[in-house]
Amino acid sequence: MATQAQLSDFFSYLRIPSISAEPARAPEMAACAAWLGGKLGSLGFSVTLHDGYGPPIVVARRSAAAPGAPTLLIYGHYDVQPPGPPELWTTPAFEPAVRDGFVYARGATDNKGQLMAHLLGTEALLSSAGDLPVNLLYVIEGEEEIGSPGFGRFLAEHAQSLACDAILVSDTSMVAPGRPAITCGLRGIACVDLTVRGPSSDLHSGVFGGAVANPATELARLIAALHDTTGRVAVPGFYDQVTPVGPDERAGWRTIPGADQGILDATGAPALAGEEGFTTLERLWSRPTAEVNGITAGYQGPGTKTVLPREASAKLSFRLVPHQEPGDIARKVAAFFEERAPKSVTVHVHYDHGGDPYHADLRSPLGTAAQEALRAVFGCDATRVREGLSIPVVALFKKVLRRDTVLVGFGLPDCAAHAPNESFPLEQLDHGIAFHGTLLRRYAALSRSV
Amino acid sequence: MATQAQLSDFFSYLRIPSISAEPARAPEMAACAAWLGGKLGSLGFSVTLHDGYGPPIVVARRSAAAPGAPTLLIYGHYDVQPPGPPELWTTPAFEPAVRDGFVYARGATDNKGQLMAHLLGTEALLSSAGDLPVNLLYVIEGEEEIGSPGFGRFLAEHAQSLACDAILVSDTSMVAPGRPAITCGLRGIACVDLTVRGPSSDLHSGVFGGAVANPATELARLIAALHDTTGRVAVPGFYDQVTPVGPDERAGWRTIPGADQGILDATGAPALAGEEGFTTLERLWSRPTAEVNGITAGYQGPGTKTVLPREASAKLSFRLVPHQEPGDIARKVAAFFEERAPKSVTVHVHYDHGGDPYHADLRSPLGTAAQEALRAVFGCDATRVREGLSIPVVALFKKVLRRDTVLVGFGLPDCAAHAPNESFPLEQLDHGIAFHGTLLRRYAALSRSV
Repeated sequence: MATQAQLSDFFSYLRIPSISAEPARAPEMAACAAWLGGKLGSLGFSVTLHDGYGPPIVVARRSAAAPGAPTLLIYGHYDVQPPGPPELWTTPAFEPAVRDGFVYARGATDNKGQLMAHLLGTEALLSSAGDLPVNLLYVIEGEEEIGSPGFGRFLAEHAQSLACDAILVSDTSMVAPGRPAITCGLRGIACVDLTVRGPSSDLHSGVFGGAVANPATELARLIAALHDTTGRVAVPGFYDQVTPVGPDERAGWRTIPGADQGILDATGAPALAGEEGFTTLERLWSRPTAEVNGITAGYQGPGTKTVLPREASAKLSFRLVPHQEPGDIARKVAAFFEERAPKSVTVHVHYDHGGDPYHADLRSPLGTAAQEALRAVFGCDATRVREGLSIPVVALFKKVLRRDTVLVGFGLPDCAAHAPNESFPLEQLDHGIAFHGTLLRRYAALSRSV
Repeated sequence: MATQAQLSDFFSYLRIPSISAEPARAPEMAACAAWLGGKLGSLGFSVTLHDGYGPPIVVARRSAAAPGAPTLLIYGHYDVQPPGPPELWTTPAFEPAVRDGFVYARGATDNKGQLMAHLLGTEALLSSAGDLPVNLLYVIEGEEEIGSPGFGRFLAEHAQSLACDAILVSDTSMVAPGRPAITCGLRGIACVDLTVRGPSSDLHSGVFGGAVANPATELARLIAALHDTTGRVAVPGFYDQVTPVGPDERAGWRTIPGADQGILDATGAPALAGEEGFTTLERLWSRPTAEVNGITAGYQGPGTKTVLPREASAKLSFRLVPHQEPGDIARKVAAFFEERAPKSVTVHVHYDHGGDPYHADLRSPLGTAAQEALRAVFGCDATRVREGLSIPVVALFKKVLRRDTVLVGFGLPDCAAHAPNESFPLEQLDHGIAFHGTLLRRYAALSRSV
């Protein structure tokens, strides 16, 4: 069980409302980076907070006692999603509360809890062994939730000092409690804002309705046109670069029990839905999507206001699979909307940001060490899975540092990342701490034998 | 030209933010009713403010000097639409400002300016003649912009004391400056809220996107299905009660010049649009519509938040023509949405309120007097038109008081009712004042001769 001191550290970290999407939170972002710097400094790491790339990027390094040890980079992010409506939280988003073995707070699983397991794992290792078996390099950024806009430039400008042998990220989920996973594939993302404009101001819907196109209706038509009747994305060329999943990998996924029921339970959706011809896990892990993240148009207050709104807009995100390219998809989406819109409105498409999809194999020393450490902690083999979500930095690491990333997550499917009442099981904190120590020792040993 | 005292009265009235859609404005609603009561009291009217039906309903009566004079009811409303985003107003919505002969303020034309013309007309008549030629009954309510929810009950409970010979409403527009109109038809309205619900909370669009239906996408599909490719409303049975406009009335409308260009100029829309097979005025005045007044779904703040929203909703309004019935239309719309929605979401349709469409002829004493008074003020015959907007109380008057309403408006097509920078030409205030006096004298004379 985590000690009181460990929990106290974790809760201090969770209490900082480090919401990267809200520009007014700059002081909290700096405070969160400083908190991490203080924690790592207290563990004997040399810490640098890099300004000029958005919220400070925390870099902390501590060398192994033994010469020739490999260098492991552990990446995490200290920013969190906006909490959303306070009334949907049982306890406030930035006042961590423990109920039935779970800690509830924004960031509990994504990503503060998972990073905390590593920090406390390092602390435990130092306290028991007095030193580290590998050179350890923590890189923790503060803009992951808004697409890491400054991280690519930071990485490019510090590629030499960030040289490493392998990268570990814990920002994913296990298959189920007690059933660990290593994530071999991540979907990429292309985020696109779509705005439809008509009249120069809101109009009286009685005076002008029927003779002037309604931008909200036109926006709805464009969104409705995104999919065909089989659930496929209807944007021309959308699937051109998609490579099918191999039969072995597909067959492996079909052994994972209860995926459909698990998703029904976790989401409360009345029924599952999606592209015809694929299982639920195939839809989530190997098929690209077109999702609406938000729509805003006209009057949204109490009662009625019979306006014909002057504009309507939607935030869209497209989840991508190997080998789709975000910029290419955004261009195809923009062309699709622009060609379909009638001349009674104007259509404006803004490509906000994107991240490449990722796929890796696990025969490296770190991949092997991770599999061994998971077996040691959980007593069973890790399932090789993919994830539906996007971690754009994984593709960046490959491109800039030319190193593969091993993804071992300790979240559970019902941890409500990005949603109200986000949680993290305290048991998983303990498992993560144990995993960290075993992993570092095994990785050091396997690197020596290569 | 209006005197300084007349303008001062008008501006005092415009300064009161009597926004019926905002429950917090109850004190301003009461202040606005009290202001009207004070004004009418100062003109020798006996005034009652009726509570218990929403904001106070102002009733003021003053008898004619001569016995046997007819009773004219003038209806108006003192509530206004919400002003919308302050940054879209050149000067603040509740600080009336005059520029180039126009007064700019929320309510300037709808309905404070038009009612003010009558109040100042009564004042001028009393000041010149010392008495009124007809029994005059002002009925001014405070919830017209939100569908007059309490007015029908008020009318039913006070039908005897509100007995009258005819009703006049000035809440419509002229054809153009210098070209007056009498409005013989109004569209009705059915306001419907549509909500689509899916998962029990917002989901991570990467973790669950592709396997769980997106309520925002489903909402867009339902809205997109509202019209067929020719612009007709696709709800089954929607046109069952629609009676076509007679060839003479249609032909008259085609003599109104510049309607299309006028609407393009007034709205700034890139191009006109609408149901195939009809002119613009036919679309506005004689065809029913399905409009989206607002949509809300998911994340609408700065940056991106990659959620799959738990629900999405739209405020819809359907403009109706004779002899569609709002409740019937709302039921057909609800059935349409409920049948179309997939089982992966739930659909909730709420019928907020409605108003019947209206059509009248003008051979009554008041109709004749109005035509003569307009000819006297403007030097030309009034055009017989319809309006696309809804004034549900006109249908209520017919039903409860069994009296027809004559609609003579002094607004102009570019007065921006319901929109930012709403305005009213001061010249129209003068025309309205002159019209009021002539109308009352002619109506008294014509009533005697009947």
